[in-house]
Amino acid sequence: MAERKPRIDRRRLLGDLAALSRIGGRPDGGVDRVAWSPADLEARTWLRSRLDDAGLVHDTDAAFNVFGRASADKRRRLLIGSHTDSVSAGGRLDGAYGVVAALEVLRALHEASHPAAACVELVDFADEEGVRFPCGYLGSKALTGTLEVAALGEPALAVLTSAGVDVAKLHTASSHLKDVAGYLEIHIEQGPRLEAGRVPVAPVIGILGFDRYRIQIRGRSQHGGTTPFRHRHDASRAAAELVASIPRLVASIDRDGTATVGTQSSEGGAINFTPSQVELSLEVRQPDRAALARTVAAVRGRLKTIARSHGCTATMARQDMRPEVKDGVPVAVEPAYFAPLTFDKRLFESTRRACRDIGVRSRPLHAGTWHDAGLMARKVPAGMLLVPSRGGVTHAPDEHTPDRALVEGARALLSAAVLAVAALRLA
Amino acid sequence: MAERKPRIDRRRLLGDLAALSRIGGRPDGGVDRVAWSPADLEARTWLRSRLDDAGLVHDTDAAFNVFGRASADKRRRLLIGSHTDSVSAGGRLDGAYGVVAALEVLRALHEASHPAAACVELVDFADEEGVRFPCGYLGSKALTGTLEVAALGEPALAVLTSAGVDVAKLHTASSHLKDVAGYLEIHIEQGPRLEAGRVPVAPVIGILGFDRYRIQIRGRSQHGGTTPFRHRHDASRAAAELVASIPRLVASIDRDGTATVGTQSSEGGAINFTPSQVELSLEVRQPDRAALARTVAAVRGRLKTIARSHGCTATMARQDMRPEVKDGVPVAVEPAYFAPLTFDKRLFESTRRACRDIGVRSRPLHAGTWHDAGLMARKVPAGMLLVPSRGGVTHAPDEHTPDRALVEGARALLSAAVLAVAALRLA
Repeated sequence: MAERKPRIDRRRLLGDLAALSRIGGRPDGGVDRVAWSPADLEARTWLRSRLDDAGLVHDTDAAFNVFGRASADKRRRLLIGSHTDSVSAGGRLDGAYGVVAALEVLRALHEASHPAAACVELVDFADEEGVRFPCGYLGSKALTGTLEVAALGEPALAVLTSAGVDVAKLHTASSHLKDVAGYLEIHIEQGPRLEAGRVPVAPVIGILGFDRYRIQIRGRSQHGGTTPFRHRHDASRAAAELVASIPRLVASIDRDGTATVGTQSSEGGAINFTPSQVELSLEVRQPDRAALARTVAAVRGRLKTIARSHGCTATMARQDMRPEVKDGVPVAVEPAYFAPLTFDKRLFESTRRACRDIGVRSRPLHAGTWHDAGLMARKVPAGMLLVPSRGGVTHAPDEHTPDRALVEGARALLSAAVLAVAALRLA
Repeated sequence: MAERKPRIDRRRLLGDLAALSRIGGRPDGGVDRVAWSPADLEARTWLRSRLDDAGLVHDTDAAFNVFGRASADKRRRLLIGSHTDSVSAGGRLDGAYGVVAALEVLRALHEASHPAAACVELVDFADEEGVRFPCGYLGSKALTGTLEVAALGEPALAVLTSAGVDVAKLHTASSHLKDVAGYLEIHIEQGPRLEAGRVPVAPVIGILGFDRYRIQIRGRSQHGGTTPFRHRHDASRAAAELVASIPRLVASIDRDGTATVGTQSSEGGAINFTPSQVELSLEVRQPDRAALARTVAAVRGRLKTIARSHGCTATMARQDMRPEVKDGVPVAVEPAYFAPLTFDKRLFESTRRACRDIGVRSRPLHAGTWHDAGLMARKVPAGMLLVPSRGGVTHAPDEHTPDRALVEGARALLSAAVLAVAALRLA
């Protein structure tokens, strides 16, 4: 077959996305496709049948990662994809969009007899969300050989076994890694920046790293009527001054950084008594290790100064990993520290040029959440594209991205894949 | 007997205080003399016997308020005293010092055949603390005719009855009010100002009024990685800016004012998500009604401005009275609003001049807590003196005031009583 210019089929792309969203679909437009559930397994079966329909071949590894490719494939390939599992009462786009866009890209390349078709492979990673037991990214961990099967624990192994996974063979999933030359993923932003900037698709520089702390400020519980301000050891006031000062402090180090005080509580106080202690959570995110460390040090210094000025003492300790439970099921626990990640220069350039080549308004940014691409980036060159999330909403039935952006995103992924295949010298 | 200059007997004063502290005394130096307990009743019996010893007469009203006076008493009298009941695990001084100091003043006047002796009456008010059931100041309420017996409720009436109170006669306690021309009380400060200023005894201008609120700031729970500061509706940050701004705002209206954020909590957040709501308690105290109202209005305005600047909404609602329980027993509940109180000019002048006359370093201040004197001030001219509390500690076994200040306080009370008798034209 003669080579033609590959093109994204808008109707097929959106049609496949709609078809997939009906598997585990909810009346409110969301999906319940929690990993290892019948709906999750059905989605993988559906994907294999769509690969069959397109004359592509597929296989499924021991972790239930689904791969698809042209039959005349080369040994070293660029992997493109995401995941089809969802959180409970999730949206139709988180993960699913990346898999369907990759399917469409692979089909477009294959149909056009493009030389890159033989060098691109689809992947639908298993259990990215980590909803059933505390281990997210199970599929990408299995592929990259970083899954600690023994550490999963009995309840997790029982879930896997009942879904048909042969736990004893999980380790074999990593044998495919040697064929993987790189990884590209497109995902919804899960934040408000692209929508606010009217950007349909953007290349991702890297993923913000984070460092998490529990801050305790200890003062003295004193009577609100008999204790003038100057005689107080007021943990509440010290905490307020700290929290109010953090945004400027973070931005002074790197304007892409963020910080979040997500929980706060007081002890020992009453409406007429100052608290004896205030506790805050703090998460700092920055795009590079140095900025992250500098921000944490700056907050620590500020905390010390403020606490002293109020006659309080304070501690700031890394927030340990804790098993979390949501709606009765344990949730994947992230560690206290994740180093910032910068994607491979060649793959970032491929995504950046792709956005330019398809002629859309765009701008590079940092992803603020972790993805399979983050796991893959530790072993192979990786890159990412993001499309807007309406209102920044994610992990909810009203997750939404305009069709136009979904199509532009797939076009960008197609272009980026071709560029990456060249940049990695696969074709 | 010829008139002599009345004088405080230091040893007798401190000896009586020590004797009283052994009734319900604790090994740690504190007292358990909760109202209506055997120890509380024993303290009143002890007081009557000390009045007998001094050749004074006494009677006990239907509320178990104990009164003591010279037999040759006049019809209209200045009442001096406080209360001998304590909180659970309380200190030896809160209330007790005021009663023992008044006893010593009455004895001194009587022994000196001072003309004022016939115009001064001791009172030991019943159940000031309100620990056994939610009604503090039972004795002073009964005397002033403001006790709502029916509103006390069955459990309270059962406590009273089992202590021997004839509930049906409680209302008769107010018949004595017509004989009361004024009230003077000396009390420990329960705050740190006098100790810090090395002031052994101070005249009290009035009692700070308070106004109590629950503030709710509602934002949006947003992901800490994907949501830059400028896209956040961050209730945590808004709350911090408000709390940090309050002290300056209060002091700009009246430097004697205070404000307390005693409790804070967040909802809907996590270490990596901003909270959807932050709730704070706020208590504002000011020495006069206008300052109190202006402060509340200023905080409300600031709250509105700050909430709007963060895309949040906020409410500030008066904190309703709520039944509170401490260590399994209900605690007297104060209302959301108490108007500031300014003591009668003549009685304030008596206390101010008394401090000057006894030659101690002093300065007028506002009491930050309510006392029997506050209840009495609503019906008769009243005044107060305060002595230091070490570390501002109160309602705890380590309540402490140096002996020197206890003696100076009694001397000031003696002088103030003589001046008040003259000012009220009783002698």
